[in-house]
Amino acid sequence: MSTHKSTITLLISCPDKPGIVAAVSRFIFAHQGNILESDQHSTNQQDCTFFMRVSFAEEGFALLPSELEATFAPIAEEFHMQWSVSYSRQRKRAGIFVSKFDHCLTDLLWRWRSGELMMDIPFIISNHPDLEPLAHMYNIPYYHFPVHKETRSADQQRILEFIQGRADFLILARYMQILEPLLVDAYPHQIINIHHSFLPAFIGANPYQKAFARGVKIIGATAHYVTANLDEGPIIAQDVIHCNHRDTAEDLMRKGRDVERRVLAEAVRLHTEDRILVYENKTIVF
Amino acid sequence: MSTHKSTITLLISCPDKPGIVAAVSRFIFAHQGNILESDQHSTNQQDCTFFMRVSFAEEGFALLPSELEATFAPIAEEFHMQWSVSYSRQRKRAGIFVSKFDHCLTDLLWRWRSGELMMDIPFIISNHPDLEPLAHMYNIPYYHFPVHKETRSADQQRILEFIQGRADFLILARYMQILEPLLVDAYPHQIINIHHSFLPAFIGANPYQKAFARGVKIIGATAHYVTANLDEGPIIAQDVIHCNHRDTAEDLMRKGRDVERRVLAEAVRLHTEDRILVYENKTIVF
Amino acid sequence: MSTHKSTITLLISCPDKPGIVAAVSRFIFAHQGNILESDQHSTNQQDCTFFMRVSFAEEGFALLPSELEATFAPIAEEFHMQWSVSYSRQRKRAGIFVSKFDHCLTDLLWRWRSGELMMDIPFIISNHPDLEPLAHMYNIPYYHFPVHKETRSADQQRILEFIQGRADFLILARYMQILEPLLVDAYPHQIINIHHSFLPAFIGANPYQKAFARGVKIIGATAHYVTANLDEGPIIAQDVIHCNHRDTAEDLMRKGRDVERRVLAEAVRLHTEDRILVYENKTIVF
Amino acid sequence: MSTHKSTITLLISCPDKPGIVAAVSRFIFAHQGNILESDQHSTNQQDCTFFMRVSFAEEGFALLPSELEATFAPIAEEFHMQWSVSYSRQRKRAGIFVSKFDHCLTDLLWRWRSGELMMDIPFIISNHPDLEPLAHMYNIPYYHFPVHKETRSADQQRILEFIQGRADFLILARYMQILEPLLVDAYPHQIINIHHSFLPAFIGANPYQKAFARGVKIIGATAHYVTANLDEGPIIAQDVIHCNHRDTAEDLMRKGRDVERRVLAEAVRLHTEDRILVYENKTIVF
Repeated sequence: MSTHKSTITLLISCPDKPGIVAAVSRFIFAHQGNILESDQHSTNQQDCTFFMRVSFAEEGFALLPSELEATFAPIAEEFHMQWSVSYSRQRKRAGIFVSKFDHCLTDLLWRWRSGELMMDIPFIISNHPDLEPLAHMYNIPYYHFPVHKETRSADQQRILEFIQGRADFLILARYMQILEPLLVDAYPHQIINIHHSFLPAFIGANPYQKAFARGVKIIGATAHYVTANLDEGPIIAQDVIHCNHRDTAEDLMRKGRDVERRVLAEAVRLHTEDRILVYENKTIVF
Repeated sequence: MSTHKSTITLLISCPDKPGIVAAVSRFIFAHQGNILESDQHSTNQQDCTFFMRVSFAEEGFALLPSELEATFAPIAEEFHMQWSVSYSRQRKRAGIFVSKFDHCLTDLLWRWRSGELMMDIPFIISNHPDLEPLAHMYNIPYYHFPVHKETRSADQQRILEFIQGRADFLILARYMQILEPLLVDAYPHQIINIHHSFLPAFIGANPYQKAFARGVKIIGATAHYVTANLDEGPIIAQDVIHCNHRDTAEDLMRKGRDVERRVLAEAVRLHTEDRILVYENKTIVF
Repeated sequence: MSTHKSTITLLISCPDKPGIVAAVSRFIFAHQGNILESDQHSTNQQDCTFFMRVSFAEEGFALLPSELEATFAPIAEEFHMQWSVSYSRQRKRAGIFVSKFDHCLTDLLWRWRSGELMMDIPFIISNHPDLEPLAHMYNIPYYHFPVHKETRSADQQRILEFIQGRADFLILARYMQILEPLLVDAYPHQIINIHHSFLPAFIGANPYQKAFARGVKIIGATAHYVTANLDEGPIIAQDVIHCNHRDTAEDLMRKGRDVERRVLAEAVRLHTEDRILVYENKTIVF
Repeated sequence: MSTHKSTITLLISCPDKPGIVAAVSRFIFAHQGNILESDQHSTNQQDCTFFMRVSFAEEGFALLPSELEATFAPIAEEFHMQWSVSYSRQRKRAGIFVSKFDHCLTDLLWRWRSGELMMDIPFIISNHPDLEPLAHMYNIPYYHFPVHKETRSADQQRILEFIQGRADFLILARYMQILEPLLVDAYPHQIINIHHSFLPAFIGANPYQKAFARGVKIIGATAHYVTANLDEGPIIAQDVIHCNHRDTAEDLMRKGRDVERRVLAEAVRLHTEDRILVYENKTIVF
């Protein structure tokens, strides 16, 4: 559901027990909030964790941001909630990382300009100078940060210093560099990567060549949050496309590009709309 | 989410205004109900109607069915709700109608026996005797009700007399007869039909031949509630499959059978789980 | 199968009878041609028409273009063939028509520059000036040809005069104007249009609004050759995407854009590779 | 393309060089064969192997089976072909192996009886007695061959002795036993297995549990020929279905059943129609 008026979104996770929904919706109602969307999930397992996303119109809501925090705190405490609040009028700032492939970046920029992705793009960073003209077409600052194997840690340290305070989350739009822990740790569950295979199949380098060698009849792409373990972070979105014996490894790359850009854009959209909660290396997508 | 413990499900529609979710969830919580699933939708249009489906565990809930009704009535009245309640332990009774094609019936019966469809099947009715052995394989009574063009109204009147009180909803599993208003009116939004095309394309008879003649590259199937206008009732589920110039009309029928049975089964599952609300000839599927 | 060496492609249709494949392949072999792809189809109907596409390497083939024509003529005559020959090194020239929507154009231009679409783009024509900057990003001449209802025939006559001799086929990339017969007749089965619905559902204007009003659970897009009857020409490619009650008409437009650009690009690729034969308002796609 | 008249199908593989198609089609034409379908493929790699499937009507063809063999031999020799011939009127005999799950078996039997699968089913073998009633519904002999871990080799030896001469190929319709080399070697590329995951993801036991634990957003199924290495044989067909955080491992099993039975049936259909060639642990599917 798209809406252009500003909304307030609460993301909540806590131990499951009766009364959570009642307490949250009563809180919103009591301060003149009109709920626009509400979704919840409970892991029906031993620990039984409860997750909730609720969004309501900012217009008419009686509490200012600072007041909301203070007023909701007792409820959060009562239910041992981890929670966050976001205002849709405060667009998230997405720092984009690329290397030489331009299909994901082209797609993100077009969707962003057409209004599909409600975010700001303060910068594009690359280890190559190639895509600077594309960034300039859209008037986005482009920074060339070379990364070398031997100095990778120091190189990425410089990147981190540059981006801190400038970006709320990062998008690796086919950034062909492994991130150092210092970067991963600075943006926990805030770095979205697109892997060009249907994970967990074909982890690591050259998945299209591997898919070709294995003779699969479907290829895919996976958007996930980056964690310490390469290609093993929480999966946000996946999609596939059929292929056959006529497809060379090069054809798989061509077909796969369509899937990659679609899946990455979907993951970014979900993230910007605060629709994702991470739980035990999995995602709940409301 | 499947659960084998009995759940209580409320389906609600009413004019949208703040406080509905808070009132409903407070009601459930106040009587020791633990919400398992909750979904809502608001038509962002002039009238602005609000829809809600909420299910909670029967175990532990403090109100008996008769008490629930009485206790919830004031809330329903306050918000001008149309509402219904169902208990998952009370399986709906599905009367199945067939003609000669067996693919949808075979599929429904297999899914039913395997536990995918939580319903009872009190009878199968057909205008042909052909599928009686299949019904007997599953120990379901099979009744042959011939229907003739000239006497259709009277023929279907006899069917109606037979089924009333025995079935909660009807499934037309490729029943090749148009239903008379007397039957349609007796089961408003309680008769599920599978149409072998991607509606609104190819309304009426012989959709595969029409699809072949038009040269489409995809064919589909549509499950919908039967209304007075043929193939124009609220759509519940649709799916498609690709085809090409090599496919004869016969091939389209073969491919289409797979889609038909899958789409019909999905619609039946949604209906048995009280996941469908009808609104202005459209469905809200929670 | 993609190959970057120049290939020769024969497209053949004729009454079906034994010996056609043998004659064609013998012809190619006799002049040192190495067949790279070969596909055929026969309409198993009363008339029984035979269709064939065969491509072979230009390198090593013994006949010059003029010689090929003369040498193949007797075979063509014997079997009453309609046939054409094309050389992949002679890229087709695609004239693109747009209005204000930029998603299809953006996508076509990106695919073209990335090497997915083997064609030249001599010009972009529009009835609005809006997309000129996009054309300039890719260094393609952009011509603004206003079209007015009252003077449409004369307006399009001027367009025709401009494009004749400059384009081999036309792409209507969401060109929101009905083409006059003078244009349609000048490019028989050489004008590709993208219609933003799953034809034959929702012919004509505003298909997303119609789809929203009908409450369908899947929307689609259709690429077809333009004929005299609006949206009734031979279908080249179709695809779909699922939707639900949460999707507003605006959401359907957003989701549909992804399908439109993918389907149009696929149709254009098939056309540039000479993979399409038209037969009785249907396409054979090899 | 389905046809009910008997056809002759040649499957050919050989080193690629010009003239193969010409020689084969000339051979068929010279003996009054009318080609119905013809497909070919060449691996554009160093070795460059050529594959061809051509089918023609048996009616009117001048050579008896024994004559065909003798007459085609010189051509086969000239091009160093590996080749086989099959007559569609000689239906392949499929031996089906099952354990306790009935969804794939139910589906295969229904498709077989409805005429979708052109094969005979001489027997069903199981390591459990459970599915005997299902076999009897379709009048197919059912044999209970218990298999024990400690005596597996001997147990399967007894199975091999039973089936030899009775089946042309084997279908493992969720047969939960690893096949001994003695069985695999007796039916090279003639044993079709359905694995309930999107290979190469989730090889081995309990793929749905693994998929649930990993939090994937799509699950799949893979039909492949059984080789010495578990789940690593040539892939014939694959398909997928979307899932989300609401799906329990049990839900994944339910959704997956639909994909499994569809993919297995497709692979069996392709095999019975001689549409599959195996090449370097991959399949070419014509």
